[in-house]
Amino acid sequence: MEMAKIGPGVAGGNNRQTLTDADNEGRHLFKRWCDEAGLAMGVDRMGTMFARREGTDPDALPVYVGSHLDTQPTGGKFDGVLGVLSGLEVVRTLNDLGIRTKHPIVVTNWTNEEGARFAPAMLASGVFAGAHTLDYAYARQDGEGKSFGDELERIGWVGDEEVGARKMHAYFEYHIEQGPILEAEDKQIGVVTHCQGLWWLEFTLTGKEAHTGSTPMTMRVNAGLAMARILEMVQKVAMENQPGAVGGVGQMRFSPNSRNVLPGQVVFTVDIRSPDQAKLDAMRTRIEAEAARIAAELGVGCAVDPVGHFDPITFDPVLVGRVRAAAEKLGLSNMNIISGAGHDACWAAKVAPATMVMCPCVDGLSHNEAEDISREWAAAGADVLFHAVVETAEI
Amino acid sequence: MEMAKIGPGVAGGNNRQTLTDADNEGRHLFKRWCDEAGLAMGVDRMGTMFARREGTDPDALPVYVGSHLDTQPTGGKFDGVLGVLSGLEVVRTLNDLGIRTKHPIVVTNWTNEEGARFAPAMLASGVFAGAHTLDYAYARQDGEGKSFGDELERIGWVGDEEVGARKMHAYFEYHIEQGPILEAEDKQIGVVTHCQGLWWLEFTLTGKEAHTGSTPMTMRVNAGLAMARILEMVQKVAMENQPGAVGGVGQMRFSPNSRNVLPGQVVFTVDIRSPDQAKLDAMRTRIEAEAARIAAELGVGCAVDPVGHFDPITFDPVLVGRVRAAAEKLGLSNMNIISGAGHDACWAAKVAPATMVMCPCVDGLSHNEAEDISREWAAAGADVLFHAVVETAEI
Ligand SMILES: NC(=O)NCCC(=O)O
Ligand SMILES: NC(=O)NCCC(=O)O
Repeated sequence: MEMAKIGPGVAGGNNRQTLTDADNEGRHLFKRWCDEAGLAMGVDRMGTMFARREGTDPDALPVYVGSHLDTQPTGGKFDGVLGVLSGLEVVRTLNDLGIRTKHPIVVTNWTNEEGARFAPAMLASGVFAGAHTLDYAYARQDGEGKSFGDELERIGWVGDEEVGARKMHAYFEYHIEQGPILEAEDKQIGVVTHCQGLWWLEFTLTGKEAHTGSTPMTMRVNAGLAMARILEMVQKVAMENQPGAVGGVGQMRFSPNSRNVLPGQVVFTVDIRSPDQAKLDAMRTRIEAEAARIAAELGVGCAVDPVGHFDPITFDPVLVGRVRAAAEKLGLSNMNIISGAGHDACWAAKVAPATMVMCPCVDGLSHNEAEDISREWAAAGADVLFHAVVETAEI
Repeated sequence: MEMAKIGPGVAGGNNRQTLTDADNEGRHLFKRWCDEAGLAMGVDRMGTMFARREGTDPDALPVYVGSHLDTQPTGGKFDGVLGVLSGLEVVRTLNDLGIRTKHPIVVTNWTNEEGARFAPAMLASGVFAGAHTLDYAYARQDGEGKSFGDELERIGWVGDEEVGARKMHAYFEYHIEQGPILEAEDKQIGVVTHCQGLWWLEFTLTGKEAHTGSTPMTMRVNAGLAMARILEMVQKVAMENQPGAVGGVGQMRFSPNSRNVLPGQVVFTVDIRSPDQAKLDAMRTRIEAEAARIAAELGVGCAVDPVGHFDPITFDPVLVGRVRAAAEKLGLSNMNIISGAGHDACWAAKVAPATMVMCPCVDGLSHNEAEDISREWAAAGADVLFHAVVETAEI
């Protein structure tokens, strides 16, 4: 795969984080492929790329099909990329077959889907859907304090289109499942009916920097201990909200991060999800209340900033039905599935009929360089995508 | 204070970590002061600086008096610096008074006492005492993978003296307490009889990098959760070894450290201490065993590297008596105290009679830029140091 050569990882995957030089390189490669396929490229002020194949009806709104080319710092080769390149493959196939559709088809590469470098995830589609302002997005900072706006400018992808000005007839996204269900159930296709909701809660715990050796146990204001208790509590809350809910922590920073200094500050982000809106919000309320109590017991300061959020989503039943019908017509085994991960389709669903197609991935593994899919799985999903998109774009 | 202007901190303290440009600048300032005081500078291959005032007896071994000029990343202005500059003040006072001692006096600045940038702490005095080889010390790496040897070379302080070749008649170190006892007991002088021992246990937990959203709770191999449980267990072990023992974690690293990726690796250092050798070693054994069990229960890999260690120390009774006598003669309130922090005196005690003098510090706070002492406290300790050193160096 040409794209996977850009931003190589350390263990066979990719590090093509958003707005890095590698992202820029990936965008240019995608643009070249779009040019070769005769598509017209538009770029909005969030850097999202829209490659358009004209339709036959000048009044018909386009059918969008896309995903993202950015990756996690230690990401897989398929997460996101599969959906963008399969969208391109849909139009290449139509080109090869000389088929014209009534509705234009727009292959889309959303900026900063992963949220690894800049929280929240799905940032550009969120602005597109009106969930965030452009100013909010531009002000987001990475771990080094660089802003999204400056970095987008630096790599040269600030487009001239107003974000969200485009109207969509429909939005399709094809993605690897990133979870274990399809493989376990031995199904080729996931018909994605819902996506679970999420809160990212960034905790800042303030302790008292002090010597680890000469500060008696009773005099410590130990932000690290408070963090440990909060992590255990998040685990408990998630387990008590089974089935379906998840909770965990991926990002952690100790300051000053010296072996013999009790941390003055510990910052970490709790990621909680549930397909059930009431459960999700109750988990958030409970976690914030229990964390405040845990911190207070230790004299530790506790502030929470919700740096990411989306509600559970129900995808458009007509489009969902079309995905299922395509799978059936192609003789592919399939099942309904709820997406465990967030996707740009979730924000697109706020402004247009939207849905997704999923294929299995080996051991349900994603956000890991070892992420893998078989050729057959990839092709089956791309076939379903082709049929659902063409059905919607109308020949 | 001139020295405190070098490597300013962010909150009134200092960031003059070992082998940085700021450390180099601090060393040059100290050298200039030593030159002005007529001292002859020797530097060993660990970069430790030895500034010698001649004695009257050519056969008499020198009395050493020193501490360290390096600081924590967010360190105080007195931790270490007080001891080096008070040593210099001892010889300046002797110069001013025109007093010659039988034994030479050597004011010493040990390299990398803090261990913040390169573990373990007290690295140069450890090599001096034969606890580590020079090769081991040179190979130590900071968080960016830079080695101690390369960085010592870079700042230009690789001396020509073999480390540990010097023989000491006695070693004195004056230091702020870094704990709350002297202030609570309203004593001006701590007569340091012992130093507690330490283990730094660097844990590397190996989980499975996976998506925080789409990986079901039951499929997680969650190194972050194992870390949280180990921190709580360390707290429990320390509390069960009261009075005297301490345990905590100052350094923590998640990989890949992305909000929506369960960490593939979590690395952190447990710092445990006790004045009681048997207790200290039992704590280590128990912590390693319980951590292994906690990790195994979660399917998480657990490796432990002891990156720092020293045994509890009993200081030389004759020198301890001399410190107490000096405090008494000067009419200063005093008490016996066990050092909670490690000091170069602990390694010096392995090769020579050694002891320490301590003064109180405000709120027992150290390894914090807000660290503070009063002028009166500083002066009282320096007076005691002067008398104990001169008594030992003999007029
Ligand atoms: N698909 C995906 O990994 N998206 C990133 C946002 C999330 O954490 O769900
Ligand atoms: N005195 C001091 O802070 N030394 C650093 C070594 C330790 O952690 O005790």
